[in-house]
Amino acid sequence: MTTGSPARAALIALDWGTSSLRAYRLDGAGRTLDTRHLPWGIMRLPQPLQDGAATPSGQSGFELAFEQACGDWLRAEPHLPVIACGMVGSAQGWREAAYLDVPVDLERIGTLLTRVERNGATPVHIVPGLIQRHGLPNVMRGEETQVFGVLFDQADDPADSVLIGLPGTHSKWVNARRGQVTHFDTFMTGEVYAALRGHTILGRTMIEAPTSDMAAFERGLKVAGVPAGRAGVLSTIFSTRALGLTGELAGVSQADYLSGLLIGHEISALADMLRLQGELPRIVVCGDDALCQRYILALRHYGLGTPRLAQHATERGLWHLAVSAGLVPVPSSSETTS
Amino acid sequence: MTTGSPARAALIALDWGTSSLRAYRLDGAGRTLDTRHLPWGIMRLPQPLQDGAATPSGQSGFELAFEQACGDWLRAEPHLPVIACGMVGSAQGWREAAYLDVPVDLERIGTLLTRVERNGATPVHIVPGLIQRHGLPNVMRGEETQVFGVLFDQADDPADSVLIGLPGTHSKWVNARRGQVTHFDTFMTGEVYAALRGHTILGRTMIEAPTSDMAAFERGLKVAGVPAGRAGVLSTIFSTRALGLTGELAGVSQADYLSGLLIGHEISALADMLRLQGELPRIVVCGDDALCQRYILALRHYGLGTPRLAQHATERGLWHLAVSAGLVPVPSSSETTS
Repeated sequence: MTTGSPARAALIALDWGTSSLRAYRLDGAGRTLDTRHLPWGIMRLPQPLQDGAATPSGQSGFELAFEQACGDWLRAEPHLPVIACGMVGSAQGWREAAYLDVPVDLERIGTLLTRVERNGATPVHIVPGLIQRHGLPNVMRGEETQVFGVLFDQADDPADSVLIGLPGTHSKWVNARRGQVTHFDTFMTGEVYAALRGHTILGRTMIEAPTSDMAAFERGLKVAGVPAGRAGVLSTIFSTRALGLTGELAGVSQADYLSGLLIGHEISALADMLRLQGELPRIVVCGDDALCQRYILALRHYGLGTPRLAQHATERGLWHLAVSAGLVPVPSSSETTS
Repeated sequence: MTTGSPARAALIALDWGTSSLRAYRLDGAGRTLDTRHLPWGIMRLPQPLQDGAATPSGQSGFELAFEQACGDWLRAEPHLPVIACGMVGSAQGWREAAYLDVPVDLERIGTLLTRVERNGATPVHIVPGLIQRHGLPNVMRGEETQVFGVLFDQADDPADSVLIGLPGTHSKWVNARRGQVTHFDTFMTGEVYAALRGHTILGRTMIEAPTSDMAAFERGLKVAGVPAGRAGVLSTIFSTRALGLTGELAGVSQADYLSGLLIGHEISALADMLRLQGELPRIVVCGDDALCQRYILALRHYGLGTPRLAQHATERGLWHLAVSAGLVPVPSSSETTS
């Protein structure tokens, strides 16, 4: 398990979540030399063998996954620093890392990494999460790194308000201004979609479709904005089934309709909250391409304009955090990549 | 499998849903003589044996369940009429019964029963469901019978608007006036609660509690009404987990908090819709006692007053529908029970 790249690296960066682990090997300008995608999320780590020479006794699932992710990279360049973000820093992770209170200066994040010692081997530096204690409490782990990546790469005036959308299992919408995260919201849209589809009557009439039905998605998207949408998502989701019973929505279109319906309720609520605040910030969206396209349709439909799409935010964030923490030297301006 | 009651019956009434079957033996005044509760919902019928004398060949799961529910009652009094409501009349049921379009005169329901012939044995008369085609379509099967029962037993002026709440897996809120069902809404609150608890991250930190934590329920109930509630239920549900992480909500209290949160969003939306309509009708609630108590707290909190509790609505509705359909003679006024 070796990689062919002879280029010298400066950092190993790990995006280590609940269900998967991505490893990046970055050079001295923050450019990605190698990427690996492994299934070893913190809830599904490789199991240490109880005997046999293949696994040194006492090695944890975290160590095993770490070895597969970047053991060879570290043997080739033993002095590379390692930074990691995500649920690896949760109470169920390798080591519990701090939560920083919002509002927070982003620069502080890089000064509060949690160092995991590894018996003299290269330590791992885990990025803290963010916690918001006013109103209903809210937490994030991993998304703070994406926000860091988006904000440090943006060309705009950092004094401007920006709203960063990170759609996924738990969508995060993060308000930032003058290098501070000022507020964030979580929407469990992705996980609720999966639970409704897999474990309620709505899934029973859905038929697997070979391609997306974007017309059904857009039909669902609009529901939150029509008078019947006032009943809220606990009510409108039932229309997925009722439209099927009345012959108005085919089984193959019901999953995309439901996806649109949920994303529509999320973005409609977001738009209402932004209007109450009296400001419509610039919006940046970052995440899986197909999912971002759905959110772009939703943002347009609910009058929030067309957002900018940010890419590679996690590896950019891990890079900038490692620089900010002094794990890697500040690159000279001639090396910097955008 | 015989019952000891020697009293003469006038009707066998079946409440036959997805997950269970209730059978009632009623006398000539509509009083309940016997009740049986069987697990034979239409999605979990008894399986006909493939051979052996115990099961006459060709007998369906519906016939087997029917025999267990009331076979002995019919052998004792072979000429009793039988009426049934609920999902037994769905496409997956014994025989698909009609849907009547809302608005609908309740008296019409009794004139459009679907008759299931049983090879010369006593036929079964299935109550039609209701369908609402304006706005987002909506359907019910079984609840129309409860509405019938509530409205025919009420002492108030039938010209008044009444809103009948039927909390459960799928809560129904049914507007009626002058003997007509004019509108209804469905909220999938109960099923969403079960899916969130059983199949999302929210369930992972919940700890089974021996008793209900009504303080946690009421705390969740209020969320829809505070500023953070504007983000909608897809967002606020995450506070179940976040309050646990911040040490503000014990694992044993999280299920009741989530229950309150969901019911709060349902009733908050209902209250907003009623205020937009400009009228606050009398409210009647009908269903499982403990669940109705939760809804009463919610209705009070969101300014909808204290509803009347209706009991035995299904058997009362089946009785009145059977009278209305001419299956049983109209009782003389001296026999009538309230």
